[in-house]
Amino acid sequence: MTAETGTSNAGSGAPVYFDRVALIGIGLIGSSLARLMRRDRLAGHIAVSARTHATLDTVERLGFADSTTTDPRQAAADADLVVLCTPLGAYADIAAAIAPVLKEGAIVSDVGSVKGSVIADVSPHLPDGVHFVPGHPVAGTEHSGPEAGFAELFAGRYCVLTPPPGTDAAAIERVAQLWRTGGMTVETMAAQHHDRVLAITSHLPHLIAYTIVGTATDLEDQMKEKVVAFSAGGFRDFTRIAASDPVMWRDIFLNNRDEVLEMLGRFSEDLTRLQRAIRWGEGETLEETFKRTREIRRGILAAKQA
Amino acid sequence: MTAETGTSNAGSGAPVYFDRVALIGIGLIGSSLARLMRRDRLAGHIAVSARTHATLDTVERLGFADSTTTDPRQAAADADLVVLCTPLGAYADIAAAIAPVLKEGAIVSDVGSVKGSVIADVSPHLPDGVHFVPGHPVAGTEHSGPEAGFAELFAGRYCVLTPPPGTDAAAIERVAQLWRTGGMTVETMAAQHHDRVLAITSHLPHLIAYTIVGTATDLEDQMKEKVVAFSAGGFRDFTRIAASDPVMWRDIFLNNRDEVLEMLGRFSEDLTRLQRAIRWGEGETLEETFKRTREIRRGILAAKQA
Repeated sequence: MTAETGTSNAGSGAPVYFDRVALIGIGLIGSSLARLMRRDRLAGHIAVSARTHATLDTVERLGFADSTTTDPRQAAADADLVVLCTPLGAYADIAAAIAPVLKEGAIVSDVGSVKGSVIADVSPHLPDGVHFVPGHPVAGTEHSGPEAGFAELFAGRYCVLTPPPGTDAAAIERVAQLWRTGGMTVETMAAQHHDRVLAITSHLPHLIAYTIVGTATDLEDQMKEKVVAFSAGGFRDFTRIAASDPVMWRDIFLNNRDEVLEMLGRFSEDLTRLQRAIRWGEGETLEETFKRTREIRRGILAAKQA
Repeated sequence: MTAETGTSNAGSGAPVYFDRVALIGIGLIGSSLARLMRRDRLAGHIAVSARTHATLDTVERLGFADSTTTDPRQAAADADLVVLCTPLGAYADIAAAIAPVLKEGAIVSDVGSVKGSVIADVSPHLPDGVHFVPGHPVAGTEHSGPEAGFAELFAGRYCVLTPPPGTDAAAIERVAQLWRTGGMTVETMAAQHHDRVLAITSHLPHLIAYTIVGTATDLEDQMKEKVVAFSAGGFRDFTRIAASDPVMWRDIFLNNRDEVLEMLGRFSEDLTRLQRAIRWGEGETLEETFKRTREIRRGILAAKQA
């Protein structure tokens, strides 16, 4: 479909359109957003900024950018919408760099997996008259980089917006509408709430997957025998998660430290309880715990998030 | 294909055939094996035993059994091959029950996810002249019961056989050939080795998945807010694993206690190391750990087990 017909927005307001969009960082999420905007003609000009010329060469070959630059300031100049799509650790410097060229009424948003730290890192740099709408499209694959993106990545998933109190309602709605065009259900909540929920549903699962894959590798080295070959018994799902981008995940853990440590504490208590049940042969404790988690899966299937 | 042509055995020996096969227990694995034997005409008669008439009614409706009974002894009588496909906790009683009717030269095998305990539970009951070939087809889905099975479940996966020293070579080969017909690569190893490898690649991942899904559910109850809805960020893979059969998994943990506790100890050490790195902001430790696990995923893709 195209912006002219607007049918993909049916029932959810008018199609959104930005004269100039700047995407700062162009990995899996950034390039998927670029493809979506291209597909549905949501932007007059898509300016892409990346750290290396190698990445920008790829972007040019893929054809979803109207201009490319290694300078985020150049990309953000005169933009109506700037979306930060880099690892979280780069946000503060980028905000400082682009602040002087942001035009009155511009919207700054992002796609980061932690929201409290984003507000702390970005807000202080933004001039008055610029609208800041932090966002997190909860979607992804284990693949990274601009070639991994696709316009349909967001379809059927949730997007969380965490605008600070007092944020311009029209700016929030424009960002919400952008993600809805991608097929997302948009929810608005406080940054701290987002960070707690994501700590358990995304950050901790990744940390655990990274850990167990490492533990298994050490065992394989020690036993000098195949371990990975027998991954079909459950392990392979963990290896998929543990293949996600290392720098992006480093920054998530560093920026959501308190919530991740809190969830890790709860998880460790629960694991220790099961560990004890195994040691002492308490079959009922195990069976009842396992029966309960089965119901959760049914909830996810019902919510069509499986 | 059919046993007459034998092309699915191309390059791996003659097709295997049993006059009478008894499947004791008929869940995901047992019913998949029955379907495989039916499809490729590997058995003259398939006798199925299950605990309840409700299950047997389902089996009769599905049409892959020649006879059904709630009495394992009746199913095993005169069988050339008996395969135990129940949760591990039932093995000892079943072995005691069927021992008197096992005929000279019969093969007893199983599909359990722990092998040391199986040898301890079953071997003492078996009369001389009966060949015991413990096995573990490393394949599965999160679904349970006779309706969940399919003949192609085993294709491309590994099957581990752990025959005790001195087991008849021809009997081992017949069981191996059966699983090869299902498309499996068969490996023979010591039971203890199997139990250690599976503790890390299958048992621990399940334990962790069960745990984290429980932790998240408690949080959802406490926050009175949606948690599960945001499962696309990694959590959903864990909920899939945590939907596996509770009784089967209870028995796996009770029967592979020492190896699971050993692997859990290693995992906890490694997780604590990352926890500390998060608390103290040690980004390099995190990034290097995450980079390393990415390579493992590539190994699994290369081994075609993804």
